[in-house]
Formats: sequence, structure tokens, C-alpha cells
Amino acid sequence: MKLRSLLVTLAALFAGSALRADEGMWLYSAPPRARIKAKYGFDLTDAWLDHVRLSSVRFNSGGSASFVSADGLVITNHHVGADSLQKMGSKDHNYLRDGFYAKSAAEEIKCNDLEVNVLQSIENVPARINAAVPATLAGSDAALARRKIIAEVEKESKDKTGLRSDVVTLYQGGAYHLYRFKRYTDIRLVFAPEAQAAFFGGDPDNFEFPRYNLDICFFRVYENNQPVKSAHFLKWSANGAKDGELTFVSGHPGRTSRLLTTAELAYVRDNRIPFTNLMLKRREVLLTSWSGRSQENARRAREDLFGLQNSRKVYDGQQAALQDPAFFGTKVAAEKALKQKLADMPNGADALPAYEKIAAATNIIAQNATRHRFLEGTYRDVFSTPAGLMSESFGIARSLLRAGDERSKPNGERLKEFAEARRESYEVQLFSDKPIYNDYEILNLSDSLTFLAEQLGYNDPTVTAVLAGKSPRARAAELINGTQVNDVAFRKKLYAGGSAAVAAAKDPLIEAARIIDTEARNLRKIMETQEEIKQQSQAIIGKARFAVEGTASYPDATFTLRLSYGPVAGYEENGVKVPAMTNFAGLYARSAEQDNKPPFDLPPRWVEKKSALDLSVPYNLVSTADIIGGNSGSPIINRAGDFVGIIFDGNIQSLVGDFGYEDIQARALSVHSAGILEALKNVYEVPVLVAELTAGRR
Amino acid sequence: MKLRSLLVTLAALFAGSALRADEGMWLYSAPPRARIKAKYGFDLTDAWLDHVRLSSVRFNSGGSASFVSADGLVITNHHVGADSLQKMGSKDHNYLRDGFYAKSAAEEIKCNDLEVNVLQSIENVPARINAAVPATLAGSDAALARRKIIAEVEKESKDKTGLRSDVVTLYQGGAYHLYRFKRYTDIRLVFAPEAQAAFFGGDPDNFEFPRYNLDICFFRVYENNQPVKSAHFLKWSANGAKDGELTFVSGHPGRTSRLLTTAELAYVRDNRIPFTNLMLKRREVLLTSWSGRSQENARRAREDLFGLQNSRKVYDGQQAALQDPAFFGTKVAAEKALKQKLADMPNGADALPAYEKIAAATNIIAQNATRHRFLEGTYRDVFSTPAGLMSESFGIARSLLRAGDERSKPNGERLKEFAEARRESYEVQLFSDKPIYNDYEILNLSDSLTFLAEQLGYNDPTVTAVLAGKSPRARAAELINGTQVNDVAFRKKLYAGGSAAVAAAKDPLIEAARIIDTEARNLRKIMETQEEIKQQSQAIIGKARFAVEGTASYPDATFTLRLSYGPVAGYEENGVKVPAMTNFAGLYARSAEQDNKPPFDLPPRWVEKKSALDLSVPYNLVSTADIIGGNSGSPIINRAGDFVGIIFDGNIQSLVGDFGYEDIQARALSVHSAGILEALKNVYEVPVLVAELTAGRR
Repeated sequence: MKLRSLLVTLAALFAGSALRADEGMWLYSAPPRARIKAKYGFDLTDAWLDHVRLSSVRFNSGGSASFVSADGLVITNHHVGADSLQKMGSKDHNYLRDGFYAKSAAEEIKCNDLEVNVLQSIENVPARINAAVPATLAGSDAALARRKIIAEVEKESKDKTGLRSDVVTLYQGGAYHLYRFKRYTDIRLVFAPEAQAAFFGGDPDNFEFPRYNLDICFFRVYENNQPVKSAHFLKWSANGAKDGELTFVSGHPGRTSRLLTTAELAYVRDNRIPFTNLMLKRREVLLTSWSGRSQENARRAREDLFGLQNSRKVYDGQQAALQDPAFFGTKVAAEKALKQKLADMPNGADALPAYEKIAAATNIIAQNATRHRFLEGTYRDVFSTPAGLMSESFGIARSLLRAGDERSKPNGERLKEFAEARRESYEVQLFSDKPIYNDYEILNLSDSLTFLAEQLGYNDPTVTAVLAGKSPRARAAELINGTQVNDVAFRKKLYAGGSAAVAAAKDPLIEAARIIDTEARNLRKIMETQEEIKQQSQAIIGKARFAVEGTASYPDATFTLRLSYGPVAGYEENGVKVPAMTNFAGLYARSAEQDNKPPFDLPPRWVEKKSALDLSVPYNLVSTADIIGGNSGSPIINRAGDFVGIIFDGNIQSLVGDFGYEDIQARALSVHSAGILEALKNVYEVPVLVAELTAGRR
Repeated sequence: MKLRSLLVTLAALFAGSALRADEGMWLYSAPPRARIKAKYGFDLTDAWLDHVRLSSVRFNSGGSASFVSADGLVITNHHVGADSLQKMGSKDHNYLRDGFYAKSAAEEIKCNDLEVNVLQSIENVPARINAAVPATLAGSDAALARRKIIAEVEKESKDKTGLRSDVVTLYQGGAYHLYRFKRYTDIRLVFAPEAQAAFFGGDPDNFEFPRYNLDICFFRVYENNQPVKSAHFLKWSANGAKDGELTFVSGHPGRTSRLLTTAELAYVRDNRIPFTNLMLKRREVLLTSWSGRSQENARRAREDLFGLQNSRKVYDGQQAALQDPAFFGTKVAAEKALKQKLADMPNGADALPAYEKIAAATNIIAQNATRHRFLEGTYRDVFSTPAGLMSESFGIARSLLRAGDERSKPNGERLKEFAEARRESYEVQLFSDKPIYNDYEILNLSDSLTFLAEQLGYNDPTVTAVLAGKSPRARAAELINGTQVNDVAFRKKLYAGGSAAVAAAKDPLIEAARIIDTEARNLRKIMETQEEIKQQSQAIIGKARFAVEGTASYPDATFTLRLSYGPVAGYEENGVKVPAMTNFAGLYARSAEQDNKPPFDLPPRWVEKKSALDLSVPYNLVSTADIIGGNSGSPIINRAGDFVGIIFDGNIQSLVGDFGYEDIQARALSVHSAGILEALKNVYEVPVLVAELTAGRR
């Protein structure tokens, strides 16, 4: 009977009810009504959910946001808007550093290439997908078949509704949902504080708490050259969240890996993170050093540098968890228990070989990972660049080369970033007139060519071909100074002309992309084949697991809209209580204890206006909500559906969140709605914006 | 006849006369009299050489210096003195950052563990060494035999003369010289400027020119509690060096690798530098991020961080040269030509198999290098720590463990750092009461354990044993918080008690050192065996080469006293002329163009005293002298033998200097003697020190 009772315990562990207190990034189509009702006595009504969903905005540059007025005003994080702030800047206007305020609609500045989405509907479509990918298909055939049917479903939906339509794979293939979004591409900047107010404390205080960051940015969404009438928006709460109060987070967590098998987690720990960390730190040093040479260098590199430092802390934090036997051990034990449970269930044992398949596929991935990273790259973005040829220009060059080859193929057979349903989005990016700086491009390309030669070997045939008998620095200069891809008109010409036009141009950077393209595509195919095997195997495990857990579970994050929740709550660290909220007095104290030196210096405006501020107003706060990267800019919302704050970070202990939820010390960090209002009124003195927030309309 | 004439040309290439204009780090026992006479019409007399030699001082912490008064006053670089400044600092006194001035002898502060040396004599001892290491011995046997005879020679000399006696291997084993030094260990700080004046422009301007650095520091050498009477010292030139003037550099270049074979250079390019750069950048990010959290963190890490950033630029610069086919190609061509020449000479072909042996040894080294770096370490210092367990405390712990084992062995059989002749020096270090900070130790140790697990593999048996079932962070905290090695009395007790006392102590950090000691020693033995094979092979090539080049050549640098020379001379960069000198006006301009922001901020004193300064006085200068790391702090000297400036850096183009000399753009950077005097008089207002420099005595 001992085995039996053990299994009962384990079953409880895996049942939804055994999730940690406020765990979960819940689907809007399967919200945790019962859990919230039971614990907090609150009803998640359809009306409440619709209101919050339609007030929620996705920034496709990688973050979340919400409507906060009926006239299309949205609030997100400064660090989410940063990409746009950087791109609209110039040698004379450093909006990212200095901030911006449009006193009237006429002064609002249009973003170069930003797209935002509002989720309109969710439809369950597994039957069509599964029917088109019979279990008899394996590897890349199955991937091709799935890509084809997904592209069909997406195109059909887009043609019918006019909405952006993405098929989202959930529960490791356990479910396929069709998400339809309203797309907006005319987004204008309304207000941004100085970077130093938004990111006070810089890298040293990043992912730490207590914090004092005004990490906010306001944009306005336009349609037909008019502010969009946003029927749903979140009413601004002047008092904001209170300690202990239940809050909700509606946003777009990017990616979690909570259902990875231990073989995959070991790969992450032993292969992916070591490489990523190595590359991040190398690039952080490169950009920091270059930034130091002049203020203009610093402006050009700032956004990339921020991203690198941020990612570095994330990966360091994740690795700390993965290398901790206490954490990894629970994963191993849980997997063993689930396997035992499956073996014990009718038909459950059929799922067990899936673990072996995942381990074998992971092994092949590990063997090819280094070359794949250097020559193909691991990012999903069409303009991402491989680690060996890192530079914005190379991303464009390769995109032009491949667009020429891919666009003549049937939609379902293309590399997925060239699928017809995504065309509009990638054209926005491809034809962006965002400035590209040759010196910065050469810096990045020459360093990554150096890295390429170091890691693949100086005498590797591909490396030799890429360097073409030159030093990394000389080759980078030759390619960047010789290419025309930084000219938007040239891009348009080649894009329109297809592969023949691309070949005829003999552009040196495109030709460099061609040198590695066959190998890069082969590597990608290997990886996609193995990923497909993993995906099918994970779907088998996922379905088996689903049979145990029912609907009481949430899928891994997919950069689609999710609902999280949890109370505002402090925690204990090294035996010291960390209160749930900071206030403006704390900001001035932290600056003083660091002698007001960067990155703890206060913008002049904050020094001048100190006496005008109520220093006791809450500024930043922590809550137990389950969030991850992509949630940045998510509103935090009270029971009334009002805006009480905005997520901007997690603490260091929360970085384990990619692999599992923790609520002892892990916390989500937000800017408090009362603090934002106080700063807008008395530091920035922007009464028109304050009035719009207070009234909910202009 | 074509082959013949080609060989003649190549012979010219390799003959001393074909060295580039001012190339060479010359032995004082074989100075380039003829070259200097021919080109500059100047006679290097014995009296001039003796005077300069006895005025030159070696800082064993890794730099050069010179006597500048009859009362033991020495000048070196701020960055050479930094190690001592850091160690004598505390939470309340940040001498490194804030500077220091002793108004009287009583105020001079003694350094914790600094040793300086003055070279007294050079003796040629190859016969004894070679006789004790017959050609029939190979590998580790030869290494052991050589170590034994070297220890004997050193001990005998020390017993006879009372002087520190080091046998120095020159010309890759082509020559063995016995260097005898006067040792001083009572060194006191007299004057240091603020770090911000010494290292104005920080990492961004490091290895760049124009520059504006007051990279100086004055110490006084004591003996028997009295300032030493330095019969030889360099007279201070108030006017200093002029553009175009011939100058000499007398200092201690640390290490060059100009005679490496191409197989070895490829190993450096493809294995050693990629690893080193990876580690340096990882640690630079770690310390930068930690330093940002508080001012005290920054103080504790500053010196290490400076070293990391400095090294990073050096290795990046070297790799740029090694990955440049234009540079590497000349090395390949030169080696091919020399081989051809040897094949053509009577008995010359006997040297050719040495190239194969070096290549084979290099291959074995490459295979073992990673584990060796992580578990044994690549540094020569007894307190150096391996990359996998990096922390000051671990260095001490391992030193205690090994001292216990080694000191009971016959002198000649010990690991070389435990040779009797070096005992006094390492005891100074081992019993240093320099403060060690546990939080900083845990930071470093936990990061390097993380790195160890990433690179050797989480499941590697050695890694598993080292981590002992804990996370890197938890294990580091346990070891550092549990060890007693940071207590000097504990160290003395264990050192005196030998291996039995060490074992009885059961100190957790020493026991951690024991876990890896067998494997670490095995790895070291493999490396030393292969290094020995390389050394013997290089000696064969060296001797053959010597037969071609005669005495017109100089050996690779060995951190022993050398003489370099070259005129003060500007250069051209990207088509722009870079003048040979900067002045104080340039300092203020550079600060202004960077908005006076760190690291371009001026210390308050420099802002206040601007009007008191003659802004046209020369500040920094460049010359073509052949220098490398270790030359930092070397005096530059005019024909009269007077002090006209002090070396503190090379420009980026000079970083190739490890592998070859360049004089088109490569330059040595110095602080000008007139600029130093002007700053001491009018910025620091230290008339007593100025008087001593001017009079040459107190």
C-alpha cells in the first residue's frame, strides 16, 4: 500500500489544485475562476474578462501595454518603448535619454516600424491541424505539413476577417488556438521620462528590490490618421494598489519552459546558457567600452547595451537555479514520479518512449548547436542575425537574399517567417527607415567575425570562405562600407525584383550571406527536424499529462495574452523584511547614499522639484503574480478592473520563473499608479496628460 | 642562382641589421652599442649603462621604476603602485581613489607585501646548466634536472652573496644568465595622485593616444628603518624630452613571444586567447555589475577590474593581429624561409625536427589546456588561482596545502615556486595582512565554480566532487565562510606545522584544494613535460638561429632589466597626424567634450587650480621605443642619463608587440617630466617633494 499512497501524493502534486498559491499564466479562454473564487471570493465574470482583454495591448517589439483613455492612449514601460524612442532619435534628439512630451496631438511623433495588436478572439482549431498532420508523418515532413495547414488556417482567417491571425501552439502541441488580433501600425509617442528616471539605478539595481523606477512611456494609437476610439480602456486609479490587495496582471508573457524534460533542462544548463552567457558578456564588454569613447557612441549603443545587460542577469539567474541540485533535483524527482504515474495508468505507458525520443533529439541538437548559432542564429525574428555575423545590415541582407528565394515557393513550404500571413509585419520591418550607423555596424560585425573564427576555428572552410583572406576587422569594413542594403530604396528594388534582382546586384553583404546560406539552411533543417520530433513527443506527454491534470492547468507562455494574479506582498531576504512598497523619499535616499553618481544620479528636474513632491506617495511595489519577460508593461488591475500599476520587472529570485514558479521570495515589480500620477503632476507638470488619465478621455 | 640570391635576401632579413629601426629589448650584458652609434652617433658607455642600471628598480608586483633622489625616492606608475595603494586602504581610507601625500617621513605608509629589486650583476652560467641536463634526458626528467641545477645555482649564489639570485633562461634556452638583485621589502608610500588624474579617460581611452594621464606614484625605499642611500639615481630633467629627441627606456618588459613557431602562434590564436578573452570578459562583467551596487563594492573590486579591462584590450589587440592574414602570413613566410635556410646550412637541417616536436607538444598542450586552466591555472605566481576556483582565499589555501607537501622534499624536486631561493619572497606574500573581504571572495568563487561546471560539464566527476552536492553559490559561501586561511596566525601555524598540521586543521577550503590536487598536479606535469620538450626544441632552433644572427639579436622579454630606445615621434592614423605630445590644455578640452562625465571628470583640485597651471606644458608623449607589459613605470632617459619621462602605456597598435615590433603606428606612451613637475608644483602644491626632485636629495 505504500506505493499506492505515494502515487496518491504525487497525483495531488500534479493536479492543478497543487499548484503553488498564485501560480499560473492563464489563458483568457480558460481562466482560473474556481481558484480565485475559492481563495479570494472574487468572480471572474465574462464582462470583466472581456473588458480587461480588450484594454490589453501587445507591443510586437516585445512587450505589453494597455489602453488608459478612450482616445487611444496606451501606457507601457519606458524599456518597452525604448526601441521606438531610440529609432526616432538622431544626433540632435536623444529622446531615449532626455525624454519627450507632446503638448498637443500635432507634436506626437510617429514610430518608425512599430506594430501593436489587440486580441479580438480565440478559437480552438486542433482538429484541423491534427487531421493534416497524421501520426504516420515524422520529422521534417510533419513540420512541413503542420506549417502548411497553419499557414492555410491563418490565411483563410485573415482573408475572412481582415484581422491578423496567428495559430498558437499550446500545451506543447496539446492544443492549437487561432488568435485574431486587430493590428495597428500608426503609433505615436506622447510622453517619455528621462531614461535616468525610468531606469534609475541602472544595471546594478536591475532585478533588485527595493526599487525606484518611473519605467513608463505613453503612446497613442492612430487609425486613418486619427486617434483610435478605444471603447475599452482601464480607468486610472488615483489611489492605486494597497499592501495585501489582490491584483491581476493582463499581459503577454513571452516564453516559459516549465514542461521541459530533464534532458532538455540539462541541455539548457550545459549548452545553451553557457554559450548565451559567453556571447552576452562578450558583447556587453564590447559595447560598454565603445560607448565610453564618446557620447554619440553611447547613444547609438545604449538600447542594445541595455538589452544585453538585462539578458545577462536573466541568464545568470536561470543558471543559478539550474545548477542548484535543490532545484534541478525537484525536476528530476517530478519527472520520475510522472513517468511512474504514466506507467501505472491505462495506456499511460505509451507515452514513455516520448521521453527517450526527446533525449535523442536533444542530443542531436546539442551536437549541431554551435554551428547553428554562428551561422543561422537562434532567434525567431526575420531580421535576427547569427552570432558569427552580428549586425543589423547582415540581417537585412540575409532577409533580402531569402525573400528572393522563398517568396516564389508555395506559401506552406516557405521558411515560416516568410509565410504570407506575416508579410505585412515583416515588410514594415524590412522597409523601416530607422537609421543604421556604419561605424557601429563594423564594430559589431568585426567582433562577431572574430568570435566566429575563435569558436568554429580559424581554418574551418566556412570561416575561411566568410573572411575571404582578410582579417575580421578588414572584412567587416569591406562588407559594411560596400553594401547598399542600408538604403531603403535599394531594399525595395531587390525585394520587388526577387532572386534575379538580388543576384544581379552583387551586393557584397548579400553575397556574404549567400556564402553561408546552404550550410545555414541545412543546420536549420536539422534543428527544425529535431524540434519537430521533440514537439510531437512533447504533445504525447502533454496529452497524457492533460489526462491527469484536466483544465486546472495553464500552458507555457507563448507571447499571447494571459491573466496572472496575486496580492501585493513583501518578503524576507537574508533575514531582513523587504516591505511591499517604496516611496519617493526612498528614491532620494538611494541617490544620496551613492553620492548621486551615475547610475544613481537624479535628472535635474527631479532635484528641482523635490519640494513639490509628496515624498510619502507609493512609487514601486511588489506582488506575487506569475510573470516573465514579455509581461513588461502589463497593467496591474484591481477587482474593479481599474489600472493600479504597471509591471516593469521581476526580482532576482523570480528569474527561475522560466522553469518554475516560486512565491517565497520571487516577486513581480510594478510602478504604482498613484506614484505615476504624482510624478506627472509635480515633476513633469503635464496637466493635459494628467487630465486625460483622470477623465479617461482627452 | 635564383635560390641563392633569395637566401641572401632572407639572411639579411634575419640578420640583426635587418631589425626594424628601433626594435629591441636589449640585455644590459649585450647592449646595442653599434646600432645606436651608427644611427644616433651616441656612445653607450659602461659608466652610462651602470648608472642607468643601478638607478632602475623592479617592482615584483609587476612593473618598473627608478630612483630619482639620493634618499631612496622612487617613481613608478600609479597603476603599478595601485596594488599597494589598494592593500593599504580600508573602508575609511581610499588611497587608490583619493591619492595620498606624506608631508614628512613620519607620514609615509609602509606597503603590506611589496618587494622591489635592483639588479647588481649578470653572470653567464650556461655551462653548468647544460652539463646537468644532458641531451639524453627528455621531458619531465630534463625539467626536473634543470630545476634542480637551477635551484642549486641560485641557492649557492644567495648563500655566497646574500643577494636574491635568479637564473634567467634567455633565447629559448640558448643562454642561462644568473641575475643577482638587491632586495628591498620596506617600501613606503610618499605620493599618489587621485586615480582619476592617473587614469583620466579610464577604460575608453586606455591604449589610446592622445592621452592626458598623470600615471605616477612615488615611494621611498627603506632599509633598517632608514631611507636607503641610493648612490645612483636619475637626475630630474625640468625641461624633459623634446619632439624628435632620442630617448632610452630602462625597465622590465614582462614577456614577449616573438620567436614562437607558427604552430605555437596558431595555438595562441585558436585556443589560449579565445579562452582568456572569454574569462576576462566574463569577470569584467561580474565585477562591473557588483561594483555598481555600492561605493564600497567598487573600492574593493577596483584594482582587479582595472587589471581585467587592461588585459582585455591587450588580448583583443593581439588577437586582431593574429587573425590578420597579413600579420600571420609574414610569420608563416619567415618560418618557411628560416627552415629553408637551416636546411641549406651545414648541420642546420639537424634543427628541423625541432619544429615537428614543438608542433606535437603544442597539440598535447591544446588537448589538456582547458582542464589545466580550470584546475591548476596558468599563472606563475604561487598565489595564483585556477579559473575554476578563483579567489584570493583559495590561492592561499592551495599554497598552504602544497607548502606542506613540497617543503619536505629536496629543494630541487619541489614545484618551482617552492624552491628555497624564493622562500623569502613567497613568505612575504603568504603572511601578508592585506585585507580579504568575504563577500568579494564568495562573489568570485561562486562565479568561477559556475564557469567550471559550465565548461568541464556539470556531471564531470571532478566538478561533482568540488561542488559536493551544492549549488556553486551555496558551495562558495560554505567554503569562504568556513575557512580560516584569511587569518594570518592560522596560516603561520599551518605553514610551520607542515602537512600533518594542514591535514589536522580540516579547513574546508584547504580540503577543497585537496580534492582537485592530484588531478591538478597531473595536468601540470603533462604541461610541464610538453613545455620542457618545447623548451629543448626551441633551444635547438634558438642556437641554430643564433648561428645566423650572432649577437646582433635580443632575446624575448623575461621581466629582467632591458634597454630599449627610440625618438619621441608622432604618427599618422586614418590619414590624420597625431602629434607626439599633448599638454594640459588638451586635458581640459577632452574633459569638456565629454561633459566632464566619468571617466572624463576632473578631480576637484584640477578644476580649482586650472588658472595656476601653465596649460602649454607638455603632459604625455609618444616614442618608438620597443616596450611591453612590465615596462610600466620605466623611466625614459636622455643622452645625459637624466629622467625625462615615465612609460605608462602603449597605444593599441603596439599591442602586437608580444609577437613582433612595429614602428609605423605602434608607440610607447609616457608622462613628461616637465608635466609631472608642473602638476606637483601648481595642482598638488607639494613643495617638499618638488624640492627633493629638483635637488636630487631631501
